[in-house]
Amino acid sequence: MNEPNLDSYKGVRDFYPNDFAKLKYITKTWQSVLDNFGYSEYSASILEPSELYEAKSSDEILNEQTYNFTDRGDRKVTLRPEMTPTLARLIAKKQKELIFPIRWFSIPNVFRYEKPQRGRLREHWQLNVDILGLDNLNAEIEVIQIASEIMKTFGLKDSDFLIKINDREILNELARELKLDESKKKDFFRLLDKKDKIEDFNEQAEKLIGQPLNQVINENHKIKEIRESLNNLNIQNIVFDPFLVRGFDYYTGIVFEIYDTNPKNMRAIFGGGRYDKLVEKFNAQSVPAVGFGMGDVTISDVLEVRNLLPEYKNETDLYLCITDKKYTDFTNKIAQELRSQNINIMIDYSYKKIKNQIDKAIKRNIQFLICIGEDEFNKNKFIIKDFKNNKSKKIKLNKIAKYISSR
Amino acid sequence: MNEPNLDSYKGVRDFYPNDFAKLKYITKTWQSVLDNFGYSEYSASILEPSELYEAKSSDEILNEQTYNFTDRGDRKVTLRPEMTPTLARLIAKKQKELIFPIRWFSIPNVFRYEKPQRGRLREHWQLNVDILGLDNLNAEIEVIQIASEIMKTFGLKDSDFLIKINDREILNELARELKLDESKKKDFFRLLDKKDKIEDFNEQAEKLIGQPLNQVINENHKIKEIRESLNNLNIQNIVFDPFLVRGFDYYTGIVFEIYDTNPKNMRAIFGGGRYDKLVEKFNAQSVPAVGFGMGDVTISDVLEVRNLLPEYKNETDLYLCITDKKYTDFTNKIAQELRSQNINIMIDYSYKKIKNQIDKAIKRNIQFLICIGEDEFNKNKFIIKDFKNNKSKKIKLNKIAKYISSR
Repeated sequence: MNEPNLDSYKGVRDFYPNDFAKLKYITKTWQSVLDNFGYSEYSASILEPSELYEAKSSDEILNEQTYNFTDRGDRKVTLRPEMTPTLARLIAKKQKELIFPIRWFSIPNVFRYEKPQRGRLREHWQLNVDILGLDNLNAEIEVIQIASEIMKTFGLKDSDFLIKINDREILNELARELKLDESKKKDFFRLLDKKDKIEDFNEQAEKLIGQPLNQVINENHKIKEIRESLNNLNIQNIVFDPFLVRGFDYYTGIVFEIYDTNPKNMRAIFGGGRYDKLVEKFNAQSVPAVGFGMGDVTISDVLEVRNLLPEYKNETDLYLCITDKKYTDFTNKIAQELRSQNINIMIDYSYKKIKNQIDKAIKRNIQFLICIGEDEFNKNKFIIKDFKNNKSKKIKLNKIAKYISSR
Repeated sequence: MNEPNLDSYKGVRDFYPNDFAKLKYITKTWQSVLDNFGYSEYSASILEPSELYEAKSSDEILNEQTYNFTDRGDRKVTLRPEMTPTLARLIAKKQKELIFPIRWFSIPNVFRYEKPQRGRLREHWQLNVDILGLDNLNAEIEVIQIASEIMKTFGLKDSDFLIKINDREILNELARELKLDESKKKDFFRLLDKKDKIEDFNEQAEKLIGQPLNQVINENHKIKEIRESLNNLNIQNIVFDPFLVRGFDYYTGIVFEIYDTNPKNMRAIFGGGRYDKLVEKFNAQSVPAVGFGMGDVTISDVLEVRNLLPEYKNETDLYLCITDKKYTDFTNKIAQELRSQNINIMIDYSYKKIKNQIDKAIKRNIQFLICIGEDEFNKNKFIIKDFKNNKSKKIKLNKIAKYISSR
């Protein structure tokens, strides 16, 4: 027999409890902020009919980066590379029953076949926040406020990040001035989108548009209104970036990006924008929409650099040792009683020497310990050890839950 | 352009917020019980190297029911059909660092290519509970106690379900008495596993074993000990079922099953057992193990029949109407203040007639409403409407959060 391979599939992660606790911390933080803003959580399967992505124009993604296969019934299936097409499908399907504006979020895992590298994996979890059916700037303002609030809930300060903002209409106007046709415009937007990664950006831009890119561009009334409204909420770290594009072709108006100002990590963390033309690809009615996506890997890197990820904490409150097999039933009864009072308990059924059992409790980083033996069984008196505060205390059964909860 | 298809992929589900709330209720209930018993949550990607499943013997599942494909790098990939092989891989990989016994749980989505029907979908979420490294009956007792506790936490009574229990060793003994070779024994176990679904079971059994199946079989000491320990914890709904098999070939000892006693739904809801030989397929060391799996679709059916699923509740506490555009910044400030006090708020930015806005709050089933206009802006006095208790009340800003939290 060959040595079995114990690794996960390439580019995806195993989540041992301490790893999973990090992911849960991130997703719970997202959920708490979104609940706070009146957003409801939805979800869907990772499997989607491939045709869902054919309605969209990002061919590059569909052809080169998605996981596609044909099922046993000859259906073409795709592992979703992003959530927005699924969202558009769900909205279009029940457009008549749903109450607009819709404020929804989701935390799907999404898949892209790409070379695994730092911050880029083949599977990651991505918060998707969207407001649909609100056709004024309050949609942009609220969504950007949420993005900022999430960063602050994770413990970042305003000075730790910038909110870059632009309006695709400004770029469209620029393209008109430069007399670019649709195809050149697309190339120009793509070039802008990568400008931080391209060393000879100015040369490439000049080649494409036929002149140096030295326009002086001013923010328009929309950007001004958004900035002022957010300033009113004490969100000051907003800058206008006239060349911000945010990749996806489906954005139609305001786009924004949260940008890390840490010198070690100067880059876009996540972003979003207005995409008013997507839902109408699925049915006749157009639905205005603003949203953003935020990946767990990127934000986790940001938090790790700043030491903002909480330490792994064992959820178990109390470890019960048993000095002799004959006290097992008694121990189980006590555990049952305390568990019903919301104390999380692990029982050691090894019947090994007490020292050995106590060592296990310490190794597992469980705060409280009680050993059950003759005294406990006959006199109903217990000694509770608190490892965190290095204290021992005699205690009655009916006081244990309260004692633990108070520490 | 063709009419786009708005349906999900066949056999999987879309989760609109009210659907997802049900799934979240189920997974949160699972998590709370498992936390209570000192179990830690782990996870992994749905993508696994196909070879992971080749180490196992359930060829039927691998060949006929899994989703397999080849990735762009020519790797064979499988969408996990169950979690146990992944668990065994994770344990084997870090066997030296992990602290045994391991008490872990996970709530993965798992995939099977089968004909969609009631209670059977191509994707479902499945609680997996496992204790590894404990080589005595306390493992079985604890895990069965957890299974029972989950049912009760969902609101079922002891009389609503039976815990059927058996020992594979009893079946092995029976096979020896009947002089069945390995292949016939396998067929016999498979037949027993389906006995409730086969009308001419007795005929088929007689044909296979060469005599009528009328053995009188008594429970052994293991079953007796488990029953007595659970009785001690007031778990009385346990029955010995000498012909219980629980499908998977990897079970090696005690097997159990939670069985619905509702006349409309008499069937196994879920089950598990001891599987001591699985981890050693991945490395040299053997690890004793007991566990069970429990699907969201099956339990959801059980709860629905008994009307035990909670009604969908909007997580949003307060709806803010705005009487005129000029009060928007003021409303945003108030919302920011109240949100920081953990009040979940949705703001109506439609600037439509107040009646129209109030109707939206009612339709959305949000309990509290405040309209912001001239009086609120100038005098800092608010009127809060409580739809649930059909009450209106004048209130100051700094009293609102407390008022809402107390109702």
